[in-house]
Amino acid sequence: MKQLDCILRLSNKFSRLPGVGAKTAQRYAYSVIDMTDEEVEDFCAALRDVKSQVKYCGKCGNFTDKDVCDICSRRDGGIICVVAYPKDVLALERVAGYRGVYHVLHGTLSPLEGRGPDSLRIKELLARLDGAEEVILATNTDVEGEATAMYLARLIKPMGVKVSRIAQGISMGSELEYADEVTLTKALDARTVL
Amino acid sequence: MKQLDCILRLSNKFSRLPGVGAKTAQRYAYSVIDMTDEEVEDFCAALRDVKSQVKYCGKCGNFTDKDVCDICSRRDGGIICVVAYPKDVLALERVAGYRGVYHVLHGTLSPLEGRGPDSLRIKELLARLDGAEEVILATNTDVEGEATAMYLARLIKPMGVKVSRIAQGISMGSELEYADEVTLTKALDARTVL
Repeated sequence: MKQLDCILRLSNKFSRLPGVGAKTAQRYAYSVIDMTDEEVEDFCAALRDVKSQVKYCGKCGNFTDKDVCDICSRRDGGIICVVAYPKDVLALERVAGYRGVYHVLHGTLSPLEGRGPDSLRIKELLARLDGAEEVILATNTDVEGEATAMYLARLIKPMGVKVSRIAQGISMGSELEYADEVTLTKALDARTVL
Repeated sequence: MKQLDCILRLSNKFSRLPGVGAKTAQRYAYSVIDMTDEEVEDFCAALRDVKSQVKYCGKCGNFTDKDVCDICSRRDGGIICVVAYPKDVLALERVAGYRGVYHVLHGTLSPLEGRGPDSLRIKELLARLDGAEEVILATNTDVEGEATAMYLARLIKPMGVKVSRIAQGISMGSELEYADEVTLTKALDARTVL
């Protein structure tokens, strides 16, 4: 028996979601059959709403449904935390300690994949630096994130703004035995006096 | 920052899919932002199609978009394989060897959860037995599946139809060391002469 066309089509749509393989997508598609008509309509409406209402904040580039996002309009712009993607803002906001604003680059430098400085929101960042005290570089600690941070540091430092990088070291709760050499080296170099 | 309402709403919808938790649902919702308008419309259309086109086969109870499914209308009804859910039909069809028809019960007996024989498609099964040579009971090998198979066997045997149960034993490629006692006992009892 071949599968029903409509189920195959829906499976294909589900498999476009991040991390969803063919089997999971099929499982999702079958579960839709058990939903009520109303649930399916609500699902469609929610999909459309996200697509039509979500846009980028004109200042920081984070997702918002207004012209300027809540963070940019309410918080002091003295400290700007630079991240690669909107999801990184979410992760940092979960920590609750930070009270400054963000700047979303929408990517990292990657010469191999043809992403140079012009493809990131770097111009917009430089335009915001007037009056800023500190720029915290919070791109990922992988090769591309590191390269992007180094590039931005060299660009911003001469403008007289303090530039910092999030600390690198051993994760909380993890064991030295399993830490890689680069992380261990960074953790030793950045040791703090107690 | 609290999350955007529309993203929260969509996350809630995604978390209704089987095995999707809050974090995965949120990841799915964010990925929708990166889809094109057309992709979102296609997604909605696919959801609606599945809901509106998929119905149950009048004979076997499997999913179909016709009145009688392809399997029932094309294959010989001499051998009927009884399964609990439509997804079990899919699993058995993947094996390619079976050429008979199916009967989907849409559940298993479960006195504890108030599912008696009347809640399953047993009447419909009995109505199909005229002219059948064999009924293969392929419900799961868990307690409820076993109970359902035993119940059906007692019901159908007196009607002069051969009743069989899928074999139980050690899974292919697995090690005796890790097999549970019940499986080992079944595997010994059902040993085959070489």
